[in-house]
Amino acid sequence: MSAQTSAEASSGRAEDMVRVPADAVARQLTGIFRAWGMREDIIGPTVETMVETDLRGIDSHGIAMIMRYEEMRDLGNLNMTPDIRILRETPAIAAMDADHAIGHAPSVQAIELACDKAAEVGVGVVTVRNSNHFGPAGAYPLRAARRGFIGMAGTGGTAISRCIPPTRGRESMFATNPLAFAAPAKRNKHFVLDFATSTVAAGKVKLCWLNDKPVPDGWVLDENGLSVTDAAKAYEYSVRHVEGGLTPLGGTADMSSHKGYGLAAMVDILSSTLAAACYMPGRKDASPEGGIGHFFMAMDPKAFRDDGEFEADLDDMIDALHACTPIDPDLPVLVHGDPEWTSQAEREANGIPLPKKLVALVHEIAGRCGAEFTLGAAPAASTGSMWGKSAAS
Amino acid sequence: MSAQTSAEASSGRAEDMVRVPADAVARQLTGIFRAWGMREDIIGPTVETMVETDLRGIDSHGIAMIMRYEEMRDLGNLNMTPDIRILRETPAIAAMDADHAIGHAPSVQAIELACDKAAEVGVGVVTVRNSNHFGPAGAYPLRAARRGFIGMAGTGGTAISRCIPPTRGRESMFATNPLAFAAPAKRNKHFVLDFATSTVAAGKVKLCWLNDKPVPDGWVLDENGLSVTDAAKAYEYSVRHVEGGLTPLGGTADMSSHKGYGLAAMVDILSSTLAAACYMPGRKDASPEGGIGHFFMAMDPKAFRDDGEFEADLDDMIDALHACTPIDPDLPVLVHGDPEWTSQAEREANGIPLPKKLVALVHEIAGRCGAEFTLGAAPAASTGSMWGKSAAS
Repeated sequence: MSAQTSAEASSGRAEDMVRVPADAVARQLTGIFRAWGMREDIIGPTVETMVETDLRGIDSHGIAMIMRYEEMRDLGNLNMTPDIRILRETPAIAAMDADHAIGHAPSVQAIELACDKAAEVGVGVVTVRNSNHFGPAGAYPLRAARRGFIGMAGTGGTAISRCIPPTRGRESMFATNPLAFAAPAKRNKHFVLDFATSTVAAGKVKLCWLNDKPVPDGWVLDENGLSVTDAAKAYEYSVRHVEGGLTPLGGTADMSSHKGYGLAAMVDILSSTLAAACYMPGRKDASPEGGIGHFFMAMDPKAFRDDGEFEADLDDMIDALHACTPIDPDLPVLVHGDPEWTSQAEREANGIPLPKKLVALVHEIAGRCGAEFTLGAAPAASTGSMWGKSAAS
Repeated sequence: MSAQTSAEASSGRAEDMVRVPADAVARQLTGIFRAWGMREDIIGPTVETMVETDLRGIDSHGIAMIMRYEEMRDLGNLNMTPDIRILRETPAIAAMDADHAIGHAPSVQAIELACDKAAEVGVGVVTVRNSNHFGPAGAYPLRAARRGFIGMAGTGGTAISRCIPPTRGRESMFATNPLAFAAPAKRNKHFVLDFATSTVAAGKVKLCWLNDKPVPDGWVLDENGLSVTDAAKAYEYSVRHVEGGLTPLGGTADMSSHKGYGLAAMVDILSSTLAAACYMPGRKDASPEGGIGHFFMAMDPKAFRDDGEFEADLDDMIDALHACTPIDPDLPVLVHGDPEWTSQAEREANGIPLPKKLVALVHEIAGRCGAEFTLGAAPAASTGSMWGKSAAS
């Protein structure tokens, strides 16, 4: 039920896709990162997170990010042998510096550290600065939930990923600043919420363009605050980063877009301001591609209640939501995480569906760095595309 | 910029209002609570919070709640001499039991305790169970910000305050489950975000009815998921608590109402499930008026960064947002908290504007419990109204 999932669910036509086993995707990513000179302890958690992301159906944030990561590497923004350090620490918090690592590795370290602290004192908060794109925010709270903790995560963006103007404003100020939250259940799958604080992520606008559909009114505004429904124009506005952009959750002032704007600001304050990241709105020394910041929190339900009580009550809540009468009998009420759990079961059995275009692009990337190509038969040459342009955050 | 504020800003016609100094409002509330037998240490923080709420322009959550509190007292749901206890505690967290106190007093204690813990170990989290309505969620993070901490708060509701159906669902499952967040600035006023996780709070629907305006499309749904724009009907749906109700933030599935639904669930998990409150969706032993739960968090920026750096960066962010070019030059870009700070300055100088109807109702309440009436000249008798019906949460 993340924005990404609903975005991707309708994207692939079967004849344009191939199914690749998760193992093969993992080998491919490992090979490329190794060829880039990335240290093994950074590769491990990065590949693990990216493959899980594809298994869970969050297609925009898994292997499809590899073109973007190649760009970041070419620009010198990815440190392959980072010195990830804890700068400050108490029994309950830590401030980390990722030394410009790819975001996944320091983020795994950060949420695990938050969980270790939660196990000791009930709560742990860890910030990360000088980081990079970390995939889907939900991956980290989910790790916490698997250990029995409540988890939360947020991330800011870089100066060039600004795409949300504040309510009433002309210039975009915030990246899509996702907020993610997970809680451990017992009978049911864990609750996992992960959403961009814009009405939709840019990937959903891109999908309208790919499918020759107009963009729904209220997703994207131009510099005069008017809705842009032409998909090609709307996509431009949602990644052009100067004036106009994606609306904050709520869409219009009437529909309380100030709440989505406030959430985007809250996530920036936690992830960028508290972490001392390079970019936040108004930060004067922000380089266009400077390191970004993340926020992670874990809480131990056993510190607050008797062991098992929290999970039992959460199971009751999840059951009650699933039992809620649907307005349309064909569209049952979902709980956050449901589509991802369904996708994971299906893809673990049948492999990860990858667009042939993406496979061709990965083939080229592997060729450029001399990594073995492991996704299957060598594809026809790619035609080039918008894939390399980041619509993710 | 809270929902409550924007709701209230357009509510009062000058000829229907009287201005009452904050001191007089405080004396009036103190007198009534004292007459009800409330202990002095409970009265103090309750009156302080309620009067500040009125000063800040959040009119639905200050003295206007007194009719509802009288109902709660009459039903035996307010313990005037509660034994507020800490059930569990570590250096970083605590779980409190409010013993059915009015919500403000245990909530002030909880956020102050969270701040004390944050001062020691960087973060503090405190849950409260068996509580009652605590006024505006933003009051507590604001207390944290005044002490130099980042603050967060959330609250669940009672079973009878359910008014938000999940996306696709027919029955309402969540109260408006507000989330509040504040962060300390230095040059600027503190950042204060406080919002219901529904598109709007029921109070805004009531205002449409009071002003003979249709309710905007997408605020309220009937049991078939269709938008209700007739204000009287819409208000019924938003407080009737069975089927239909207020839409989650986002409004429609197209506009990502699953995100607002997810936020409502997240606030319930933190405030009700983690706190072991009586009501959460699916809790089988929830009595209709049973005690509710709250969640409070405080973080010390000095634990994460050098002293003053956080506030300086936040000031830059607030300045950048204020400097953002407005689409309409007459509607400048606001930062969360701005309307409340403006209201507070104006009302500290000129008194709190109270509807004459409300003054009459307070006069009756004072009469019923034998408290002195201190709001001014005795008003004409009230006509009875919807005031007694809770539109707040």
